[in-house]
Amino acid sequence: MDSDYGVAKELSDLQKQRSLYQPELPPCLQGTTVRVEFGDATTPADPAGAHVISRAFPHTYGQPLAHFLRATAKVPDAQIITEHPSVRVGVVFCGRQSPGGHNVIWGLHAAIKSHNPNSTLLGFLGGTDGLFAQKTLEITDEVLSTYKNQGGYDLLGRTQDQIRTTEQVNAAMSACQNLKLDGLVILGGITSNTDAAQLAETFAESKCSTKVVGVPVTFYGDLRNQFVETNVGFDTICKVNSQLISNVCTDALSAEKYYYFIRLMGRKASHVALECTLQSHPNMVILGEEVAASKLTLFDITKQICDAVQARAEQDKNHGVILIPEGLVESIPELYALLQEIHGLHGRGVSIENISAHLSPWASALFEFLPPFIRKQLLLHPESDDSAQLSQIETEKLLAQLVETEMSKRLKEGTYKGKKFNAICHFFGYQARGSLPSKFDCDYAYVLGHICYHILAAGLNGYMATATNLKNPVNKWRCGAAPITSMMTVKRWSRGPSATTIGKPAVHFASIDLKGKAYELFRNNASKFLMDDIYRNPGPLQFEGPGADAKALTLCAEDQDYMGRIKLLQEYLDKVRSIVKPGCSQEILKAALSAMSSVTDVLTVMSSSSTFVGQSTL
Amino acid sequence: MDSDYGVAKELSDLQKQRSLYQPELPPCLQGTTVRVEFGDATTPADPAGAHVISRAFPHTYGQPLAHFLRATAKVPDAQIITEHPSVRVGVVFCGRQSPGGHNVIWGLHAAIKSHNPNSTLLGFLGGTDGLFAQKTLEITDEVLSTYKNQGGYDLLGRTQDQIRTTEQVNAAMSACQNLKLDGLVILGGITSNTDAAQLAETFAESKCSTKVVGVPVTFYGDLRNQFVETNVGFDTICKVNSQLISNVCTDALSAEKYYYFIRLMGRKASHVALECTLQSHPNMVILGEEVAASKLTLFDITKQICDAVQARAEQDKNHGVILIPEGLVESIPELYALLQEIHGLHGRGVSIENISAHLSPWASALFEFLPPFIRKQLLLHPESDDSAQLSQIETEKLLAQLVETEMSKRLKEGTYKGKKFNAICHFFGYQARGSLPSKFDCDYAYVLGHICYHILAAGLNGYMATATNLKNPVNKWRCGAAPITSMMTVKRWSRGPSATTIGKPAVHFASIDLKGKAYELFRNNASKFLMDDIYRNPGPLQFEGPGADAKALTLCAEDQDYMGRIKLLQEYLDKVRSIVKPGCSQEILKAALSAMSSVTDVLTVMSSSSTFVGQSTL
Repeated sequence: MDSDYGVAKELSDLQKQRSLYQPELPPCLQGTTVRVEFGDATTPADPAGAHVISRAFPHTYGQPLAHFLRATAKVPDAQIITEHPSVRVGVVFCGRQSPGGHNVIWGLHAAIKSHNPNSTLLGFLGGTDGLFAQKTLEITDEVLSTYKNQGGYDLLGRTQDQIRTTEQVNAAMSACQNLKLDGLVILGGITSNTDAAQLAETFAESKCSTKVVGVPVTFYGDLRNQFVETNVGFDTICKVNSQLISNVCTDALSAEKYYYFIRLMGRKASHVALECTLQSHPNMVILGEEVAASKLTLFDITKQICDAVQARAEQDKNHGVILIPEGLVESIPELYALLQEIHGLHGRGVSIENISAHLSPWASALFEFLPPFIRKQLLLHPESDDSAQLSQIETEKLLAQLVETEMSKRLKEGTYKGKKFNAICHFFGYQARGSLPSKFDCDYAYVLGHICYHILAAGLNGYMATATNLKNPVNKWRCGAAPITSMMTVKRWSRGPSATTIGKPAVHFASIDLKGKAYELFRNNASKFLMDDIYRNPGPLQFEGPGADAKALTLCAEDQDYMGRIKLLQEYLDKVRSIVKPGCSQEILKAALSAMSSVTDVLTVMSSSSTFVGQSTL
Repeated sequence: MDSDYGVAKELSDLQKQRSLYQPELPPCLQGTTVRVEFGDATTPADPAGAHVISRAFPHTYGQPLAHFLRATAKVPDAQIITEHPSVRVGVVFCGRQSPGGHNVIWGLHAAIKSHNPNSTLLGFLGGTDGLFAQKTLEITDEVLSTYKNQGGYDLLGRTQDQIRTTEQVNAAMSACQNLKLDGLVILGGITSNTDAAQLAETFAESKCSTKVVGVPVTFYGDLRNQFVETNVGFDTICKVNSQLISNVCTDALSAEKYYYFIRLMGRKASHVALECTLQSHPNMVILGEEVAASKLTLFDITKQICDAVQARAEQDKNHGVILIPEGLVESIPELYALLQEIHGLHGRGVSIENISAHLSPWASALFEFLPPFIRKQLLLHPESDDSAQLSQIETEKLLAQLVETEMSKRLKEGTYKGKKFNAICHFFGYQARGSLPSKFDCDYAYVLGHICYHILAAGLNGYMATATNLKNPVNKWRCGAAPITSMMTVKRWSRGPSATTIGKPAVHFASIDLKGKAYELFRNNASKFLMDDIYRNPGPLQFEGPGADAKALTLCAEDQDYMGRIKLLQEYLDKVRSIVKPGCSQEILKAALSAMSSVTDVLTVMSSSSTFVGQSTL
């Protein structure tokens, strides 16, 4: 229904009020004069992949960081972009819908128009399909009026989340050339931003003048690295889900007879589950990263839950709330192996009915052990990125059933003396994705939209818009841009026989850092959460009053301002250079040499270390 | 965990702010002087049951309505209750937890203490089990501090929702006598209030001095009649669910490829589903009352949905949102019949494994036709009131599967030419029940709590607290009390072989009135909802700003103020009496006789009419 995109919507009272909310801009983006300062050439966090990445992206690898500063900032090397010729920019929704996406477009539009009213912003209708087919809608203030600060992607719609095949890349290039676009802004997660980097490289190589910019819009929260602290949508999704989890906790405590197993959307990583745990304090969460790190089997996890149920029953507590990230199923080793076999058979064209007959004896035994509903779900075709259809696999029901069986057994054997175990299962999936965005997401998305314009005005290609120092108020945020290639890692492990991504650079997928501060915060409280029912209810998403300005707890727990600290380092180096100029005393030179030699020794050892701990430990 | 009831909770910022919210009182309840005016003796709406009810409740049937008025009200017959000796009152959570329950206790406590600080309010710990076991917690301001305006029932907990067997009734009476209670306040829905009426009758008969008061607290919204406009919790549940439904609608419109089947909690009636439909405008809702009225089979409903999918596909729309009330399964004739057979076999002690073998050939054929997951769910033991375990039966999945099969068939046959049909199922159940109560529910519950005290102060037994004229601001609300017996009807139909309630009076269960204004509002818009995607997003529950004071649309659509109109009628009758006094002219007497004879003729015909249309058409 192309004709329905971008039509004015009838808004409820609350939506109307939200549509009038004007996000603040950090000082550096206020007014029409913005300075750009370029930092050093960038390198990916994992040095082992640098060579592969540089070869795959000869035109766009190693570009410098860009910092956007206010016009009055006293930075000698920064350039002021004074000319703002009219530009034509296209924007496309690529990843799954994430609350705040509309505000990126609004911010971009506001920045474009404030610098030159003759500039044009075109939205591609129907996501990537619209890009390939060159279907556009000109974004105007009128078009935006009922979409400002609203959820969903219904302004433009979205279809597939990839621009990857030669055919797709060529279609995208034709669109950019035919529409005479100076810039193409791509909103999405890891997959879409990896595609954006590839598109930028291809455009540069083909001398296509369109610059490509990526924006981290994905509520999964897994596009995190030195430069990107969080993703648009993550805050909202966690708040909406935390509200619901808290409600279930209150319910559990009122009736005191059910264990609730709640599966949360969030793909492979457990970021959403961890954040919700910190916000609402359920009794347990089975983090995929912990399971993978400890190689816990389905039986280990079942036993862990059963032991918890038993320990609680000994304190006369016969209720509880357990969170299950949807990605858990891929973290459990034997289920992962089974899924890989199934996906391999899919790849070889074996029909669903025949797959079970073609499984290896080991996988077949596991498959037959599983309840029928989960067998059916495991047999579903994998997604475009070879992962299982996580939203369709009811891991929460599988675990609830296994726990129930085990508790009945313990009850019969007399090892468990509590009440009959009762489970209720919930999937908190699509009900959060279309939510009105939180104030944080409204602001963050709007600011990123503005930054996209400045990236294009600076003539940069293959960059991602970044705003950092986010745990502080908006007026402390730092705005910048980093080459997408600097966020890449190279996959060195197989993801099953149908995987085609091994050895290919991709934007780094951040799982929960088990050495990070957010995880530590959880671990320090996990036993209290488990036993003491210290449920916390942040309440429904608010836009005024207490809670309206709350930020994600995982965001606030981590060290931040990597961009600021990189700049600080540069200042130290400049200072050394200015003190130790030719002509300085022997003593000063000696001291400097000794100190620098020690620093470089330490850093050489650290950076060549084979234990790459992941970009999330910043 | 008795020791955990009533402990101070750690509140989030929003919860803290809510705990400071002070609900307003209607003028009649302000201050410490309240007048009581008694109306005429009451009669149940269905005259056919009056005789049965009066025989079952000889001591409590036919009591007058009570209106609470401000002390300065110019009503000659009203009494001012001037003496407020110290009283001992007990309060117990009976039904399922419903947002606002805590505020009834708070309101009751505030009223009791403001009239006599020496009075005592005892909360029974663990619901009815606590009542039977005489486990209490004295309610104080300190105990209440972290529960004011908060969701759940965790202040006191709840267990079974019935006080019905002789053993239970005797235990309740012993508790009241041993604890020297002047009053017992019971919070709950239809079942609990029916039990409250029975308890009041038994106490009166046994000369037990404890007066029993019921409060309509049930988010199902099915305890509605002339005197009760809505129930505590309904507003909150509908708002929380409408938010989520709207989010899913936005999601559907963004990706344009899924049909969402959402099952909503709400027991047998479809009130929650209708209210949510009016709030968020999903494409379809399958109301149980419509299905029952038209005797639609599973295949009729499937066809209805398939035809809608097809019609939408012809307009290039391949997405949609369909609401399924959890009670639907009992409204579909053949499924209901099957459930009755199953429950009958349960009643005869047939084990779950053997039930399918004992079904009649017809039921067996249907049973075998159904997918395995639903068979398993249908076999679950019925609830205490003989209804199926609705929360466990995934009707949404059954319908999605049937529709998918039919659409594939139509696709093959070429009658359907749209895209492949994709369904995603959701159950919006326990995630709403524990929510922070909406402002309306906070106010309504608090006011009802106050009224409970005045009922007891007036010495009334077997009454329900009522506040009416609710679509107007709190200062226009009318406060009163009606005998629970006047809200009763007598069940004349079997609910399966295990039903024991036939012929017994019970508080009238209100299903959606298909001749009512709320339903009419829906019907007038149903085709637009279906085809035009005029989704509306009321947003998350707000406590400040737009939407915070919104009220249920079904509440606002209906004619209200039955209590006010009853009073108006009394005024007319009084006026007639005062004009047509002995000594008036022949003409006046003649005119009065003629008019009154015509009025009484009409009313006689109408009230003897065998078509009792239900108490919900008011």
